[in-house]
Amino acid sequence: MSNEQLVRPAPVSGFPEWLPEVRLVELRWLDEIRRAFERYGFCSVETPSVEALDVLLAKGETSQEVYTLRRLQADDGDDGDARLGLHFDLTVPFARYVAQHFNDLVFPFKRYQVQRVWRGERPQEGRYREFTQCDIDVINVDRVPLYFDAELPRIVHEILTGLGVPAWSININNRKVLQGFYAGLGIDDPLGVTRVADKLDKIGTAGVEKLLASTLGLTPEQITACLDLAHIRGGDAGVADDIRRLGVTSDLLDEGLDELSFVLDELSDLPAGSIVADLSIARGLDYYTGTVYEGKFVDWPDYGSICSGGRYADLAGSFIRRHLPGVGISIGLTRIFAKLLAEGRLETAASCPSDILVVLPSDARRAEARAAAAHLRARGYNVETYHEADKLGKQIRYASRKGIPFVWFPPFEDGKPHEVKNMASGEQLTADPQTWHRP
Amino acid sequence: MSNEQLVRPAPVSGFPEWLPEVRLVELRWLDEIRRAFERYGFCSVETPSVEALDVLLAKGETSQEVYTLRRLQADDGDDGDARLGLHFDLTVPFARYVAQHFNDLVFPFKRYQVQRVWRGERPQEGRYREFTQCDIDVINVDRVPLYFDAELPRIVHEILTGLGVPAWSININNRKVLQGFYAGLGIDDPLGVTRVADKLDKIGTAGVEKLLASTLGLTPEQITACLDLAHIRGGDAGVADDIRRLGVTSDLLDEGLDELSFVLDELSDLPAGSIVADLSIARGLDYYTGTVYEGKFVDWPDYGSICSGGRYADLAGSFIRRHLPGVGISIGLTRIFAKLLAEGRLETAASCPSDILVVLPSDARRAEARAAAAHLRARGYNVETYHEADKLGKQIRYASRKGIPFVWFPPFEDGKPHEVKNMASGEQLTADPQTWHRP
Repeated sequence: MSNEQLVRPAPVSGFPEWLPEVRLVELRWLDEIRRAFERYGFCSVETPSVEALDVLLAKGETSQEVYTLRRLQADDGDDGDARLGLHFDLTVPFARYVAQHFNDLVFPFKRYQVQRVWRGERPQEGRYREFTQCDIDVINVDRVPLYFDAELPRIVHEILTGLGVPAWSININNRKVLQGFYAGLGIDDPLGVTRVADKLDKIGTAGVEKLLASTLGLTPEQITACLDLAHIRGGDAGVADDIRRLGVTSDLLDEGLDELSFVLDELSDLPAGSIVADLSIARGLDYYTGTVYEGKFVDWPDYGSICSGGRYADLAGSFIRRHLPGVGISIGLTRIFAKLLAEGRLETAASCPSDILVVLPSDARRAEARAAAAHLRARGYNVETYHEADKLGKQIRYASRKGIPFVWFPPFEDGKPHEVKNMASGEQLTADPQTWHRP
Repeated sequence: MSNEQLVRPAPVSGFPEWLPEVRLVELRWLDEIRRAFERYGFCSVETPSVEALDVLLAKGETSQEVYTLRRLQADDGDDGDARLGLHFDLTVPFARYVAQHFNDLVFPFKRYQVQRVWRGERPQEGRYREFTQCDIDVINVDRVPLYFDAELPRIVHEILTGLGVPAWSININNRKVLQGFYAGLGIDDPLGVTRVADKLDKIGTAGVEKLLASTLGLTPEQITACLDLAHIRGGDAGVADDIRRLGVTSDLLDEGLDELSFVLDELSDLPAGSIVADLSIARGLDYYTGTVYEGKFVDWPDYGSICSGGRYADLAGSFIRRHLPGVGISIGLTRIFAKLLAEGRLETAASCPSDILVVLPSDARRAEARAAAAHLRARGYNVETYHEADKLGKQIRYASRKGIPFVWFPPFEDGKPHEVKNMASGEQLTADPQTWHRP
């Protein structure tokens, strides 16, 4: 302890961290997510946090948000490290990874990637400067079967259900349906309409109407048809009939409707409301070419999307002359987790992973305490031994404060039995560390 | 696929990444390490990758190696983010965390922290710019029982043994023994001797002799005694006798010998050679005040330490006016892992976590394939379903290339049984997805 001026240990805005009892829940979430990805055979990939700047900016997008690195002691203008930046998503590093290791990978390549990403943005609710994304993608050379467009939301469904995330839906659309519909209406710039339609939940119907007329010169009939399409929702392939009933036709529309119907059919065993065709979502990025996904909280519709993704024509075209289409979805772990924490919807319990605290009756019984702990650990329990022969009440209070569910008493004298106390019920019974089972 | 100029997807020096089959082994390592930490009741803490610069530099050390952040689009001289840097170890963030959340933690606070750290150093063998550290520390208000000085190397022993890391030893010393011994010799600057003695494995006996004489003015007798001490090794409390036999006495030396003997006694059940008292190690940092640890590969003695740590008088004195002594040890995961990989000492197998590939005999059997996969997944297996009704040989080859150990054949016609092929033995048997067990 020094008498120097203290540095204030303040949190840095936009960089969340959790107390141990919250972190325990986050770990359980991470385990559950990983288990689900692996249950479907996806392999783990981790890339460095850092990429060369020309890799990060290969597509020229989102450049504003990139954090670059600089050594504190570097001379200005003479720092090779200034060519490095922290990744702002997991897609660009994945594209670079696939291009770099192309000959060592088995295709279709199915990978999951759970890592932190960084964005130099102004923090606000649901928006962080450092956060954890959980991505799965399937890529293949030249062609990716539509089957995967259904498998990915099935996996996310399994995860969100398993975690007990309150009311959510995964909304699905298909860009071919949108483009094909607009083309069928005789609109010259279908992509332009897609971009405007994507703003529906932000600027409302009137705002979209105005924009479609003013910036794209659509006729009132075209605008009405576009808005009719955008208002279609449905949980099964019946949405295709609703769309056809609008009377617009084009080959691309047919193709998109076939794809959308296939995906909805494949997912028809999932509970109603969990997977919803929503013709208003477009995922602004021009990147997507077919299926698109966007998960939302039902009770907090204005909160950002909790997962998103879709099908793209080419993953790594900036890095390799191979045609690598794919489909992917990303779960915004930090965004979901932080919201539930803020809403008081996360249940925390213990502040440590211990199942059992072995008390130390006296220094003379140290060997017995250690042996009991060793037996219990070998049988799969997480066990703390109390570190010194303190008053028994103090040792038990330590267990209680940390939420440790069982307290173990090694024999206080030779020939006496071990005992174990259930902290929830208060019951205390004799027990053998080599045979005891947690009730 | 564009015709634009490609960006070369090159690795960035000092930022390692692994192919999927290697990453699978790394994941197993991370699991094993975490399980061991939790088995002893340590709780997980993760801190942001980023700290305020004044926090990172509170102690003024290692400032050269810090990477600071800058938004790519920031105006020079007007960027709040320039006050942020990536953490270069897990101790400084832990100290800040404890100070910031002091009132919400239960003491003694036992935490583990497995995270990447960054150092803007020139990369070389065993030295990376981004790497993963696995730290455990026990801190307490005012006093930490010596018991933990033995528990920490026990946990590391369990981990290195469980991982099958080839020949290593955890070397232990006690700074009080060194300081007390030098003081007992009548040396004015015991800390100076410690710093010089720490260079023994780099500059050799002759180099140390010369330095002790030239820079510290030690007499030949004092130098001989210091070197005699530095050459003492031993696996049990007998080393204390060897040291006492050198005829030097002081109160601090006695205290140190008691501590060292206690730790060695507590660990006396571990296999010979795994825990070694080594009076030559001092861990240069003035930071440490008692027990110090340094793990080394036996076969690669010149390679950096594979774990290190020790007891310190105060963790968070820069941030809070509480006296928080502690003891900690850090496993250099990337350093160990990369070395074994380079030496061909890591066994990789599959490139994915799948236990089973369910083949798709024809599009008509998609429901059966999906149901079989669902049953097997519900029973704990990792299962891929092949994505399209390709030639059977191609589907089986996919399993073989990814190292998937079992291929499952749903019935090709109604009424026929499922079959499963063991890829290692070639054996193919009828099986039921609701009852099959992996042999």
